[in-house]
Amino acid sequence: MASKDTEPMSRLLKLARKCNCFYLSGFHSGDYRAFVVDGQQIGLIRPDVLKELLNYPQVFQVQPEYVQLNPAFRHYAERSARVDEVLREWRAGGKFITLLGWRDEYYDVRSQFNTPPLFKMDRSATCLFGIRKYGVDINGYVMDPVKGLSIWLQKRSSSKETWPGYWDNMVSGGLSVGFGIHETGIKEAGEEASIPQNLLAKLKSAGCVSLFFESEKGLFPNTEFVYDLELPPEFVPSNSDGEVETFELLPVKECLERVLSSHFKTTSVPVALDFFIRHGYITAENEPNFIQIVELLHVPLQTMYNQPQRKYKIAANGEATDAL
Amino acid sequence: MASKDTEPMSRLLKLARKCNCFYLSGFHSGDYRAFVVDGQQIGLIRPDVLKELLNYPQVFQVQPEYVQLNPAFRHYAERSARVDEVLREWRAGGKFITLLGWRDEYYDVRSQFNTPPLFKMDRSATCLFGIRKYGVDINGYVMDPVKGLSIWLQKRSSSKETWPGYWDNMVSGGLSVGFGIHETGIKEAGEEASIPQNLLAKLKSAGCVSLFFESEKGLFPNTEFVYDLELPPEFVPSNSDGEVETFELLPVKECLERVLSSHFKTTSVPVALDFFIRHGYITAENEPNFIQIVELLHVPLQTMYNQPQRKYKIAANGEATDAL
Repeated sequence: MASKDTEPMSRLLKLARKCNCFYLSGFHSGDYRAFVVDGQQIGLIRPDVLKELLNYPQVFQVQPEYVQLNPAFRHYAERSARVDEVLREWRAGGKFITLLGWRDEYYDVRSQFNTPPLFKMDRSATCLFGIRKYGVDINGYVMDPVKGLSIWLQKRSSSKETWPGYWDNMVSGGLSVGFGIHETGIKEAGEEASIPQNLLAKLKSAGCVSLFFESEKGLFPNTEFVYDLELPPEFVPSNSDGEVETFELLPVKECLERVLSSHFKTTSVPVALDFFIRHGYITAENEPNFIQIVELLHVPLQTMYNQPQRKYKIAANGEATDAL
Repeated sequence: MASKDTEPMSRLLKLARKCNCFYLSGFHSGDYRAFVVDGQQIGLIRPDVLKELLNYPQVFQVQPEYVQLNPAFRHYAERSARVDEVLREWRAGGKFITLLGWRDEYYDVRSQFNTPPLFKMDRSATCLFGIRKYGVDINGYVMDPVKGLSIWLQKRSSSKETWPGYWDNMVSGGLSVGFGIHETGIKEAGEEASIPQNLLAKLKSAGCVSLFFESEKGLFPNTEFVYDLELPPEFVPSNSDGEVETFELLPVKECLERVLSSHFKTTSVPVALDFFIRHGYITAENEPNFIQIVELLHVPLQTMYNQPQRKYKIAANGEATDAL
């Protein structure tokens, strides 16, 4: 990618690129196919998953340009049940490491965040289908009279299915069926960090970040709704649900080093960088790749996943297309 | 673009899309060609400009897939002078309305913000070549004890070459040759709004926005560096350089209505929306198209303008390419 006049990449740019490894180069690395339900692209299927789908032609129709869920399944309940059957077979057969983290916790699958759900799927399986996931993250911070702005981080429990033992933002949680965004933030702040209601009155929406990461488990086109929460210096978070090993309060500089370390959950990095940018600690003056980094915290998932008419008409005509 | 389950577009989404009309649909609307200097894409040329460039084969080499500045011009000064000659001929001949706003104020043209400049060009002409422009915007706000958060807007002078008489953010200015980012903010805050040095100590970097707009004048792939400045309630900005007609302090709700009106400068809208999002006034709870809007405030100009190897190698092999 580097053009001849480009300066060496900064550590921050490398990290922002790592969070978006699939956005930046994944598309070209193999035969990824759009996953279409009810005429709308809602995911992207990796070659290893595609191979398995060929065994279920009654459920998944594999086309040269895309894979579609059998259009005969017309409703939420039927689609959910038919997909769930396949996933449970895979899980029983020991296929796909991500299914070891089966949670009996469902995600609604939609073509866009604000459109009706098409079906639901166990959250451990969504990365196999490249389904967009939505979560809520809370940046908990303190204006320390001595150390200045300091940020609470959590260390994830070593028993968590995903990213065990990694450092993470103070509070984070996926949006599950039936919960609103702000509501999820409040719920997770209570469960993960025992933050009392009166302190949560200061919870402030601050935007969202979008990333497209890939790991050995699957694809992660994630959007995180971002909240800031200023906490009084005397408050110390404590965990209620067993999902957090410990919390630590770090001044800006140390916190940024922790985020840059290999011990921080990669898919949580954009939320932390966005916080440092919004609060004036990472700036265009101190970070040579500032613009690229900001753009990489907001990759255009809407454009990548939202061109059903164009793509599937072309495919139906039998003309070659670029897949994405 | 609307897929069948999409809710009607909100006013905010429509506005965010308007700021990005070229990003969203411009590429497909005509024969736009990459503009290449020293092997790097630094712009995009519209069909009407392309036609004129054919008259200057010594300066501009028009290829089927792109246009390149004659590679025989090897240095900044020569490139700048040869391009400037053409532009002055066009200006004298009354070609292109944007050149009526000729300013004798130069922009450095680079492949990326942090790479060395390849040449310079009068700022009125950059939109003819789709050259990325960088500016600084300051959101001036007051925590009014009665009205709550209130924002200072400026009304641009009716004698300005661009967007005369339109409402705009409190302070904004393009980055000209020789000025730093923070330095430009300080300079413009003094010239446009007479903000004294002691108040500018609170100037806080808060990120950047990227947009790709097109008007009858040309193409605007713009990145604005965003600063917030909290001002004391008793301070009233006043103009020093004749470029501002008036300033007005508006509570959040009225300010947002002003931004949504047709009297607000379109290319300044993303800065204002970003401010409302970062400060928790536009949220995922009150705006159904929140994610799309946030992504549209940060369109990936780096990806669109930064693929020289891939594109020009393919073109050199004579294979068909997608241009962009």
